[in-house]
Amino acid sequence: MRMYDIIKAKRDGAELNREQIDFFIKGLVSGAVPSYQASALLMAIYFNGMTDEETANLTFAIRDSGKKMTVDLGGYRADKHSTGGVGDKTSLVVMPIVASLGIKSVKMSGRGLGHTGGTVDKLEAVKGLRTDLSLAEAESVARRTGLTIIGQTEELAPADKLLYALRDVTATVDSIPLIASSIMGKKLTTDDDVIVLDVKTGSGAFMKSLDESKRLARSCVKIGRAAGKRMSALVTNMDAPLGYAIGNALEVIEAIETLKGRGPSDLVDLSVALAAEIAFLCDLGNKTECEKLCLDALSSGKALSTFRRMVEAQGGDARCIDDTTLFSLSPRSEVRSPRSGFIQKVNAEGYGLTSLMLGAGRSKLGDKIDLGAGIKLCRKVGDYVNKGEVIAVLYGKSGVDEAGKALLGYTTIGDEPPSPVPLILDRIGGKEEV
Amino acid sequence: MRMYDIIKAKRDGAELNREQIDFFIKGLVSGAVPSYQASALLMAIYFNGMTDEETANLTFAIRDSGKKMTVDLGGYRADKHSTGGVGDKTSLVVMPIVASLGIKSVKMSGRGLGHTGGTVDKLEAVKGLRTDLSLAEAESVARRTGLTIIGQTEELAPADKLLYALRDVTATVDSIPLIASSIMGKKLTTDDDVIVLDVKTGSGAFMKSLDESKRLARSCVKIGRAAGKRMSALVTNMDAPLGYAIGNALEVIEAIETLKGRGPSDLVDLSVALAAEIAFLCDLGNKTECEKLCLDALSSGKALSTFRRMVEAQGGDARCIDDTTLFSLSPRSEVRSPRSGFIQKVNAEGYGLTSLMLGAGRSKLGDKIDLGAGIKLCRKVGDYVNKGEVIAVLYGKSGVDEAGKALLGYTTIGDEPPSPVPLILDRIGGKEEV
Repeated sequence: MRMYDIIKAKRDGAELNREQIDFFIKGLVSGAVPSYQASALLMAIYFNGMTDEETANLTFAIRDSGKKMTVDLGGYRADKHSTGGVGDKTSLVVMPIVASLGIKSVKMSGRGLGHTGGTVDKLEAVKGLRTDLSLAEAESVARRTGLTIIGQTEELAPADKLLYALRDVTATVDSIPLIASSIMGKKLTTDDDVIVLDVKTGSGAFMKSLDESKRLARSCVKIGRAAGKRMSALVTNMDAPLGYAIGNALEVIEAIETLKGRGPSDLVDLSVALAAEIAFLCDLGNKTECEKLCLDALSSGKALSTFRRMVEAQGGDARCIDDTTLFSLSPRSEVRSPRSGFIQKVNAEGYGLTSLMLGAGRSKLGDKIDLGAGIKLCRKVGDYVNKGEVIAVLYGKSGVDEAGKALLGYTTIGDEPPSPVPLILDRIGGKEEV
Repeated sequence: MRMYDIIKAKRDGAELNREQIDFFIKGLVSGAVPSYQASALLMAIYFNGMTDEETANLTFAIRDSGKKMTVDLGGYRADKHSTGGVGDKTSLVVMPIVASLGIKSVKMSGRGLGHTGGTVDKLEAVKGLRTDLSLAEAESVARRTGLTIIGQTEELAPADKLLYALRDVTATVDSIPLIASSIMGKKLTTDDDVIVLDVKTGSGAFMKSLDESKRLARSCVKIGRAAGKRMSALVTNMDAPLGYAIGNALEVIEAIETLKGRGPSDLVDLSVALAAEIAFLCDLGNKTECEKLCLDALSSGKALSTFRRMVEAQGGDARCIDDTTLFSLSPRSEVRSPRSGFIQKVNAEGYGLTSLMLGAGRSKLGDKIDLGAGIKLCRKVGDYVNKGEVIAVLYGKSGVDEAGKALLGYTTIGDEPPSPVPLILDRIGGKEEV
């Protein structure tokens, strides 16, 4: 088998078989396939796409490129993945909810990059909390508490890292089969029974169009099912940040408030919807019953107490859960509205970049971040604001003036209220055909 | 400027400007642009093509990537290029004809690869003849004799070599703008006034389809004109080898016979047509007058005497011109027809590969070749052959049995004569619009 023939076949629109895809991925990891051949194939895939079977085979090759995490915790094990948004702290709410219902999880999460945040960074805003647990430590935590959230290890799916690094510099990121196989190749290394995806769409998402987001969701669901998983994907609106908080400590505080039953409605609605999907796929009841179970987990404090046990088991200071003023925040500064009117529209990606300017995010991998920096919104899309009223509070050690100007530039205020947009735009998978 | 943005622009179907193309080619040569980005761009070009202006700019960037040969010999200077065929020794006839008419040339030629031969290999079958002249030596020969044919130097158009090496392993060879810019990028380094191309089409050519060959011819003509050259391209049939000889010494013998006025009609016709195109573009008369001049150069022995002067000036033993039995040929072996009938069709590429099996060609760059090996055809397409008659004579030190079988496998003999196919299929350029 020659890499040349594999590139030529894809270039000419042929379907690659399992052996060809394995040859490519194994060669990429071993170094036998040079990067210039890999990037030519990626560009050919960009143009000619991949069938469902090819995409599944690419995913399996990525999954199988490194170690796997096989931990038997008894009962259903579930995972949840978001394609990335602004102010998206749902994992910190969803996972405690489902763990409190007896669904186990050893969840690997990422760090923030560009305009989006990462769950691992957020958790590290809790004093003392470690996310760099070994697999043995993670297993032990999950056995005791039902839930652990840790950073991604280098050993799982190394092909994904190589592929992404190459796609990032060769303009081959925006390809549904490549995105889907990247997401699912990592997710499938952890041997869960149920995977629920939150595919974001809109100005703050990587996928700006609803149609593309649906295609991505469908592709991921098909891949997961081909691997024998129970799968569901919600396609959700990311035209505006989720909740009111953007930035690591600020988002953990908002998640804790939500676990206490005092969360903003969009964050509560989405978290409950995602948690209910997981519960439904874990056979805890029909849709209505599952939603009720999840809402009860919030109102009863069961989810909060699961979160507390996880924080303690990972070495975190749980006192901050009772007293969120213990989180250290950077110096605050207010942004006031230059006019009266309705917040008609915001650029969610712009809000994410504003938070990055304040020190809460990374321009590139490895950058240091300020866990106490970020934005607390006082007005959201649809709200009315009077001239001179505070629209948002910024937290940051520097760059505050520029960030304030940027935030206003990303905010459209006008006389007419905007038409409301539903938060959950589509649901793909579950127990139905896709 | 970032290579990423250049790849993305081409991927999205945009037209690249001169600065972007220069950035790519300069970066490729300096190493600032890594090969994986170059190959991604090449694949995007494969899919989205290039406009005439982009192709010209790519050609100019390749031309300008190394040294140039600027030799003022006085009067018109011309070059001729073939896209490669089997048994194609026209350069050895065309260039002496036009040089005998006063048109100067310092011609750089290539070596054979795969099923096609190269003029430099062929000339080296003349005992003592050197093709590795320095530019100063070449200039001196051209001043004395009007013509020199030498090997390609590494210093001209280094970007072409890098690009070709990358295209060869990433399935991006078959792209008209990439082929045209490769051909013309090299040709334009030598500062000729007139360039005439022989674009081969058919089973023995790289371009198998007439339509693609015409597109390539048109593209090259446009590029050359954009560089201020007088351009013409003939699209010619390569469904069968040209003449009767395939292999280096065998082809030089046939070229010498042709210069003596005793050449096979297809070789004479094509050589005169190409030489007349050059003469026409050098203002030696109208088409009919130029053809007559070229035919006269053959019949009068003027072209032969120019060839002899060039051979002597490059250190070759000119006695072989008078007595072609002085060429050393490898052991001969006859291939006989298994049946009676008309030669209906041959696979010209197959004939080229058979010659390679006999030692006359190279599978890869750097392979040693046997200058005395090859095939002398006794029957051509359209000829009648009786069962048991000799169809071809093979010359080779080994592989003769397999080559004989292969040759017959590439030859179709049947009861009906084939319909005749014209040798010159199209003519693009000259003094007309394209």
